[in-house]
Formats: sequence, C-alpha cells, structure tokens
Amino acid sequence: MPVGLKMPDEPPAVQGLRLASRHCGIKRESTSKDLTLIEIAKDSTIGGVFTQNHFCAAPVTLCREHLSENSESRYLLINSGNANAATGEQGLQAARDCCVAVAGVTGVKPVQVLPFSTGVIAEPMPTAPVIAAVPELVSALHENAWVAAAEGIMTTDTVPKVCSRQVEINGHTVTINGIAKGSGMIKPQMATLLAFVATDAVIEAGLIQSMLERAVAGSFNSITVDGDTSTNDSCMLMATGASGVSIQGSKLFQRALDEVFIELAQTIIRDAEGATKFIEVAVQGAADENDARGIAFTIAESPLVKTALFASDPNWGRLIMAIGRAPVNRIETDRIDLYLGPVRLLHRGLPDPDYSEAAGQAQMSREEIRISVDLNLGGSETRVWTSDLSYDYVRINAEYRS
Amino acid sequence: MPVGLKMPDEPPAVQGLRLASRHCGIKRESTSKDLTLIEIAKDSTIGGVFTQNHFCAAPVTLCREHLSENSESRYLLINSGNANAATGEQGLQAARDCCVAVAGVTGVKPVQVLPFSTGVIAEPMPTAPVIAAVPELVSALHENAWVAAAEGIMTTDTVPKVCSRQVEINGHTVTINGIAKGSGMIKPQMATLLAFVATDAVIEAGLIQSMLERAVAGSFNSITVDGDTSTNDSCMLMATGASGVSIQGSKLFQRALDEVFIELAQTIIRDAEGATKFIEVAVQGAADENDARGIAFTIAESPLVKTALFASDPNWGRLIMAIGRAPVNRIETDRIDLYLGPVRLLHRGLPDPDYSEAAGQAQMSREEIRISVDLNLGGSETRVWTSDLSYDYVRINAEYRS
Repeated sequence: MPVGLKMPDEPPAVQGLRLASRHCGIKRESTSKDLTLIEIAKDSTIGGVFTQNHFCAAPVTLCREHLSENSESRYLLINSGNANAATGEQGLQAARDCCVAVAGVTGVKPVQVLPFSTGVIAEPMPTAPVIAAVPELVSALHENAWVAAAEGIMTTDTVPKVCSRQVEINGHTVTINGIAKGSGMIKPQMATLLAFVATDAVIEAGLIQSMLERAVAGSFNSITVDGDTSTNDSCMLMATGASGVSIQGSKLFQRALDEVFIELAQTIIRDAEGATKFIEVAVQGAADENDARGIAFTIAESPLVKTALFASDPNWGRLIMAIGRAPVNRIETDRIDLYLGPVRLLHRGLPDPDYSEAAGQAQMSREEIRISVDLNLGGSETRVWTSDLSYDYVRINAEYRS
Repeated sequence: MPVGLKMPDEPPAVQGLRLASRHCGIKRESTSKDLTLIEIAKDSTIGGVFTQNHFCAAPVTLCREHLSENSESRYLLINSGNANAATGEQGLQAARDCCVAVAGVTGVKPVQVLPFSTGVIAEPMPTAPVIAAVPELVSALHENAWVAAAEGIMTTDTVPKVCSRQVEINGHTVTINGIAKGSGMIKPQMATLLAFVATDAVIEAGLIQSMLERAVAGSFNSITVDGDTSTNDSCMLMATGASGVSIQGSKLFQRALDEVFIELAQTIIRDAEGATKFIEVAVQGAADENDARGIAFTIAESPLVKTALFASDPNWGRLIMAIGRAPVNRIETDRIDLYLGPVRLLHRGLPDPDYSEAAGQAQMSREEIRISVDLNLGGSETRVWTSDLSYDYVRINAEYRS
C-alpha cells in the first residue's frame, strides 16, 4: 500500500515532447505496458546521470556512448520486464538493435536514440517483440500520454509516478513534468532506476547537465529502500525549448525543478516495496556533509530501525545503535540531541527525563514519521527519505520471479 | 528454526573455572535465566575485545576500565534483558554497584569483577534484583554449568550456544570451552554480543590478547545478520592455567581455538533471527583484504540477496548487483567468476552458457548454501557467514518489546 499516494492525473503537456506506451510481450501479462517511447523536438537539450554499479546494464553503456557523441538525442526507448544487465556483448547488440529499429521508422540516426531497460537481471534481452512494436509506438506518439508512459516503465511499482509544476517566467508559462519508477533495489548512487524529467523551457546545452546533477543530489541520491544500488539507474533531464522561454537566472524555475525532483523521489519511497510508512531522516550540526549523510543513511538502512518503524514501536535504542555504528569522522555522543517528530528522546547524549513512552508511541504510530539528529558539532546537514521493512517487503522480493 | 543446531550437551569442565546462572527478575518470565556469574581461578590470564559502536554500553566502558587497571580479573557478571546502554552516569553507577555486590560476597576487589549486559537499549538498569541474587549465585558456582550459563546470557536466541574442544599437548589434555549469544543486531566490529571462551591451558598474559584478536577476526568479525553493530558486543578469552600445560608454540591448540571461535560464530548465524538458511560467502582473487571483505559483506547484507535466499530463488542477478555496488578499490567485471555451490553462474563476467535454472534451483533449495566469487585479480580472500531475510526476521524484530 503506497503511503499518501494516489493515481496521478494527466499533467499539462510539455510542448515539443510526445510519448507512447504499450504491451509488446516482455512482461507476461498482456495488460501490462512494457515498452515506452519518448520523442523530443529538434534542438532540445538533454542531460543524464547513471548508476555507479560496476555491473552497469548494456543500455546504460550504450546510452552514455550515444550521449557522448554529441549527436542530438531525439528518442528515448524504455522497456520494463528485463534489465538487459550482465548480458555481455549479446545484450549490447540487443540494445543497439532496438535503437536501429526506432531510427529506421523515424528517419533519425541510431545514435540519436537512447535506450533504457528495467527488470530482471542476467536474462537474455528479447528484441523481436520490441522491434515489431516500434512502428505502432511511433504512430501513437502524443503530447498527453504522461500517465501511460509512467505506467509503461513500472516493475514492482503499484502506482504510476508523475509530477508536474508550471512557473511564470517574464509573463510566459513553462511546464516541468517528470515520471519515475522503482520500488526496490533502491539506493541510487547517481540517479534512481529510471526517472525522466522534461520542460519546454530553454536550457542551454552547457547548463542542463549541472542543473540535473544539482537536482539529483537532494532528491534521487537522498532516498533508500534497501541500500541496494541497481545496475540500471538512469535519470534524464530534457529541455525542448518549445515555449521559447529562457530560464537563465530564474530562481522560480530552479525551485520548481527541485520540487519536481524531490516529489518524484519521494513518490518512489511512498510506493517502496512493502512500505507502510514514509520516513524522513534529518541530520544537522554535523562536522561535514559525509558525516551527516553517513548517519542519515545508517539510520535509514538499519533493518532493526526499519522493523521497529513497521511495528510502530518506539524502541529508539535502535536509533542510538545506528547513530553509534555510522561511518563518521567526528562524533561526540554527549552532544547529541535526537528527536522523533517534535518529541525529544536524547538530550546531550542522555535520555530526556521528560520523555514518555506515550509521546514516543504517538509519533511512531503516524504514517509519516520524522527522525532528526543534531550532532551539535558543525554546520552540515542533510535529509534522506526511506520506508519501513515489512512482511510485504519480504513477500514481494521472495516472490519476484515466481 | 535454527539451521542445523541442536541443544548442546554439557561439555567437559575447564579446570579452574566455575559458573552459575539463575532468574533474578530482569526478564519478565520467571523461568528465564537472566543473571550469570563466571569465576576464574587466581593467576588466570584474560583478554577482551569490545564493540566499536560510539554509544557503547556502560558495562563495556567499566569492563575496559577494570581490564586496563591490570588487576587480576576473577569474576564475570552477565545480565540479559537490559543492555544498560545510553543510560549515562546512572548506568555506569548501576554497573559499578553490581561489581561491588560480587566483590562483597566473594572477598575480591570490585575492579576484579567484569560486568556485561545484553538486552533492550536506553532503559534504566535495575540493580536491586541483581544485588539480591549474588549470594545465591556465588554459592551455586559449579564446574559443570556451561549449558546453564549459555542459557543465562540468551535474549532472542532460541538455543544455548556451547562449543568445546580438547587437545593433547605433550601427553596432557587441555580443554577449550566457549559460550555465546546473539541472534540480531549482529555485525560485530570487534566481537559479537557476548562470547566467553575459556581454557585450562597456560597462556601468558602478554600473549592472550593477540591470540583473541586473531581468533575473532576470522570468526565473530566475519558474521553478519543485519549489518547492525550492537552497543554491547564483548568477547572474552580466559586461560585458567589449571591444567599446568603451556600452549606455547602448539599449532594443535591454535587450530582447536580457531575451531571453537568459528563454530561459536557460526552457531550465532545458524540461530539468527528468523533464519531458515545458513550461508557462507567466500571471496577470493581480490587485490586486497578490504576489497574481499567489501564484496563478501555487501552480498551478505543485501536485503534483496537475503530475500532471494529465503525464497530459494536462484535470482542471481541480485548477486551481480551486490558485487557491482560493493565498496572496492579494484574490480574488473570481465574477470569475475561467480558460483552457487559448485554451479558456475558467471564466467569471466558473463552468464555461463552451461548454467541451467534446474542446477541453480537445486543449490538454492539447500539449507546450507555457499556463494563464491573469484575476482581473478590478486591473492586476498575471505569467508563470511550470514542468514537469510525471512518473514520471521520481521516478526521477531517488530514484536521484540511487545
């Protein structure tokens, strides 16, 4: 059951971008969409970040290659149901064949097509159903197919993930839309398993990659379900420029973009495998960013903390354990303050005498929980988001292939 | 259900060492032993290693203090049911009071008593029931109470953990016995939550600590249940010398000692919270020890690998994911060989063409599973042991305090 998520409405169109999604035959159930095509207008700009897993998937390798050739990207082809990872030269050829198919039907060069895959690792990638479906996909391309595209990239997700913002810049409206998928094998080190964000604003080619990296740091790189970094993580930011509006120097645009990234990243946690809770872990007063993130992620990934969250059990000795074992350079336990929502648990390293089990219980019983730690050492802070560890997490991952 | 473990028999006595265990009132159920006393003869030697968690428990702090004063340790007092961790000055005083109680009844100095605790973190430590129980414990001390002592230190353990070896040195028999507890919050960084090993051999005071550290590295520091390092981990090695036999230079003794440590560490994994499988992860051919251990622990702690093991699902794409995300300095994916038992999954980074799902399934269906990785890069290797992630792990940790 996703935490505080509902079926998204179709967002306003991003001018210069069309999408289509259908079932081609990679997933078993014929009602499940498994192939998605995104078209971006000529002269769009694009940036991408990818998994740091050493066993990165074939489409990730090819996608990086196509982007580095400085050719103008025009199509993104995304299949779900098969990750095309650990598939060697055969997998790389499969990804190439799919790009060639799109190029043949649309009249662009194969290098202008970017491939993405998500699903089971180490199984051969079937290309025939993909190639057969491309002509129909191309003719189905439409500006108002964001929800369908979000459905097309799902694997164990239970709801499609779509997020949208509009901002006025110099009296003109620009739109930012994003879709994402992923609910397990989630601890992106660059981006999460498939997120696509697009705007019809004008963003210079020299700027879009750094804007993407900045937005990803505080969103997709700040979430974790299980600490497991996928082989296929990819996140793309596209700017069609079709609105004719330049975002240069617009703080409003930057804020709206950050909001889309954070909201998309949070939807992944709200729909995390087996999630019954949505948890924010905030760390402040750290000596440096690494220490802040070390503590936040150790809390967010501790199986004992996560099972206590699932049980709504204010067994916060486990928070202390996690803080104490986190990889940090500087920590002084007798300076630490620890809170559950507004309820103080530790004051300067010792149990707060005013704490009551009832107050802790009230916080832990909530569906959305905030854990905050103040190290009282320095000026660095961070926020990460995570889910709890439930019976359903075990069930979903025990049954994934069966 | 513990994997391949049964109720232990009472081992042969270790001359010069007596034990007693009873219920004093820290645990709720009056049938559960929660207080254990171990007495070692005058002129024994002792070594200890402790948790590296920054929030180490009060008894760990006091135990280190007492050991560092070079006074001859004579008693070890261990309570279960309360960790006496994150309890501040009050907790330290509670641990001191318990030592004073033992000293008063036995006529030794308080500094000769070593305190240990295990149980719930951040709850006040009750001393009255402990102090009241000490006289009866002292009069109950007996050479043949190892199983009772192993029961007395249990928390979520389902079976007491006792291991014993005897070796002949120069025609004389020496005995090595060990007890341990712990089934969750297990990823020791120095030792696991409470292990006590004793021998009646003579081990010099200058040697015993290094022998302990060496034995711990390949045993308690090579196991993980959930990656969560406890606040209370302590492991002690005691040599009473009562056999009069010196172990100086005896390879047989060293081997027997290693066997006791490894077997005890393995019993903890076999009885890990919710465990249905016992898994060895072996990594060889690594450039250095850190890389070998980085990969072994990443596999052993991946929730996705652990749920696949629980489901007996040969979804070994998850092993590839874990290897690829492990913190290592050197890896070349196209050199990696990966095995499940004797079945080769990857050969030089690619799926083995001779692999069959049936062969993988047969290995995954076993109760004891071996995963091995050869990086084919260097000469470093390691072995670690872990359990699977089951519904029962979630149930046990969701219900722990209720």
